[in-house]
Amino acid sequence: MSLFFPLLAATSPTASPLLTTLVALVVVYLASKLGGELAVRLQLPAVLGELIFGVLVGVSGLRLLGSGNEVISVLAELGVILLLFEIGLESDLKELLRVGPLASLVATVGVAMPFLLGTAGLIWLFGVPVLPAVFAGAALTATSIGITARILGDLGKVNTTEGQVIIGAAILDDILGIIILAVVLGVTRDGAVSPLGLAYTTFVATGFLVAAIFLGRLFAPFFVKVVNRLRTRGDLIVSALVFAFTLAYLAQALGSEAILGSFAAGLVLAETEKRDDLERRLKPVADVFVPVFFVNVGATTDLSVLNPFNPQTQQGLPITLFLLVAAIVGKVASGYVLRPAKPVNRMAIGFGMIPRGEVGLIFVGQGVGVPGLNPALLTAIVIVVIVTTFLAPPLLRYAIARGGATRLETG
Amino acid sequence: MSLFFPLLAATSPTASPLLTTLVALVVVYLASKLGGELAVRLQLPAVLGELIFGVLVGVSGLRLLGSGNEVISVLAELGVILLLFEIGLESDLKELLRVGPLASLVATVGVAMPFLLGTAGLIWLFGVPVLPAVFAGAALTATSIGITARILGDLGKVNTTEGQVIIGAAILDDILGIIILAVVLGVTRDGAVSPLGLAYTTFVATGFLVAAIFLGRLFAPFFVKVVNRLRTRGDLIVSALVFAFTLAYLAQALGSEAILGSFAAGLVLAETEKRDDLERRLKPVADVFVPVFFVNVGATTDLSVLNPFNPQTQQGLPITLFLLVAAIVGKVASGYVLRPAKPVNRMAIGFGMIPRGEVGLIFVGQGVGVPGLNPALLTAIVIVVIVTTFLAPPLLRYAIARGGATRLETG
Repeated sequence: MSLFFPLLAATSPTASPLLTTLVALVVVYLASKLGGELAVRLQLPAVLGELIFGVLVGVSGLRLLGSGNEVISVLAELGVILLLFEIGLESDLKELLRVGPLASLVATVGVAMPFLLGTAGLIWLFGVPVLPAVFAGAALTATSIGITARILGDLGKVNTTEGQVIIGAAILDDILGIIILAVVLGVTRDGAVSPLGLAYTTFVATGFLVAAIFLGRLFAPFFVKVVNRLRTRGDLIVSALVFAFTLAYLAQALGSEAILGSFAAGLVLAETEKRDDLERRLKPVADVFVPVFFVNVGATTDLSVLNPFNPQTQQGLPITLFLLVAAIVGKVASGYVLRPAKPVNRMAIGFGMIPRGEVGLIFVGQGVGVPGLNPALLTAIVIVVIVTTFLAPPLLRYAIARGGATRLETG
Repeated sequence: MSLFFPLLAATSPTASPLLTTLVALVVVYLASKLGGELAVRLQLPAVLGELIFGVLVGVSGLRLLGSGNEVISVLAELGVILLLFEIGLESDLKELLRVGPLASLVATVGVAMPFLLGTAGLIWLFGVPVLPAVFAGAALTATSIGITARILGDLGKVNTTEGQVIIGAAILDDILGIIILAVVLGVTRDGAVSPLGLAYTTFVATGFLVAAIFLGRLFAPFFVKVVNRLRTRGDLIVSALVFAFTLAYLAQALGSEAILGSFAAGLVLAETEKRDDLERRLKPVADVFVPVFFVNVGATTDLSVLNPFNPQTQQGLPITLFLLVAAIVGKVASGYVLRPAKPVNRMAIGFGMIPRGEVGLIFVGQGVGVPGLNPALLTAIVIVVIVTTFLAPPLLRYAIARGGATRLETG
């Protein structure tokens, strides 16, 4: 008992912030590793396990983690900022332009369809007010680059036309998704849609990415020059974080989203000679912060809001099922709109776009403070992420086994 | 103005924790890099610049950083936990045993002399109560491994008898210093010295290290086996942090110090085949967390408590000068007690032991909550760290130029 008493004491509200944080971090890391490793052994993406084990240790499960710990919340937010920084760093604007028209069409349809289906359905079928409906619809727009790339890699289909279109479209709709989030949050924060507010937030959100791409080429050589002259430990990683955190701060302070800033920072630094070196050093740092985000999203997901036997929450489950259908049908349709010169496996492209991930969860993280947003909608989004991530690998395997995939000539 | 208004708003108490943390981290990293790079160019250790620039941006300077930000405080504490984990990982128990008797004698005298001189002087010359005097005396005990190793490396004198004795003694007195801190804090927390409390905290503090060394050999193969079976990102770094944070938590919850736990975790994992790989991955993570600690110590240092023209604080400056003399004389003496068979450069060993660093600053970090501790004592300790780090490189250069150093036969 003398050993366990202090252990339990740390979870009480009177414990020191350091002890509480240490316990929370150990719980987060154990949940992330147990869940991730189990998922991988079941041929599923690791992030799925992290989310589900987050639910298991959170408010809907063992209650070892939950809301109310400010330090863990900030670490989770830093985690998602670093995740988007890393995704930006791994993106390649030139490659993206090369994949070109096919990916753009898939991305556009794949963003528009789930958004319109989801929003319209919530309003007309379930009587959800416009703003929360727009928010939830927008949360369905972005295919997960990480999950999609991982599934294609596992299947050995990255270097196929289908693989490149899927990845290109996933990168594009992540960008579209983040812009939509910034716009939607900017508008919902004011509580009403004003044309001026809409124009301003769209301008700030798109302005950041455009400015990053144009100013990036001016700034990048200066960044490299400064880093090359540094002689102390952490020269590259600390300089890169100063840049990423500054853009994240500016994006948020100007009324957009912090993640848009760090994503832009990643895109800019991806164009420099430091890219590979920085990716290598950023990896362990991201490994330490990012699981806090995924496990925390799972941990704060309240499954009781879906209880169909409670009159207060009986709409939760039908809404979840509806959003799930909208999310899947909307993305599968994006493959079938293609009419390319050379035939492609449209079913594979449609199935490959199904998995939602980081950006959908970012919506959940940001949505907690949105006025009028039913908690059932947030839980529904988490479940959409979990189920789509679960379904995509077998569906994609089936589509490729049935219709094949066109291998690219490597140059 | 529209750009600067939100920037300033983030430092107000009503700003979101994320914005406040982003601004604070950018300030911390800029201070650490500007200070570190400037110091290195002046042939001084980088940590000296981080501390001084921490003072410049903190409560005694620009007030961009200060006390009261819980997230930054916890990040700083995680930083020092990771710093000690890294020092433990870089330590080599076998190598330490080989350097043997000379290093042990230097370490013992180098711990006892400043401790006794400092404590006795504070009590008899300045009328400081026993507990704070013991605390401040204990803060003078540990030579900085990091600073000392860096200075020897810069001079190309690591592989000399003198270099090995200095590094061996610095490792030993770090361990002694951390044990003393755990004991002193355990005793001062109760507000009085009880023989039972003293025995208990000594037992817990030493027990941790002894248990780590004995149980470590049992646990280490299991750790390696588990890590080797993991297939997800962050396999090694996350597993290592779970181990380090768990020991840190146990050490603190059982009434000792968190840093002792992470130091023990480092010593244990240093014995495994994963050591090199883990050091490489831990480095960028430490680079992100550790500067928060050093800059935060500088930022929370209140120089006004040394104002000699204010009757309330006029004792501060004499106390600082006294502790500085005790710190230097006590360590230099540790070189001169040696009577080895083969002659060594005793002046070089004495001067090499002068720099205080991490452990002294850890005392300052932990001392903030100690009852009856005059803030002037904490500021005096920071100044001792800054001045000794400043003096050691030129003094060591002089001693080696004058008396030489015995190069080891490399085997």
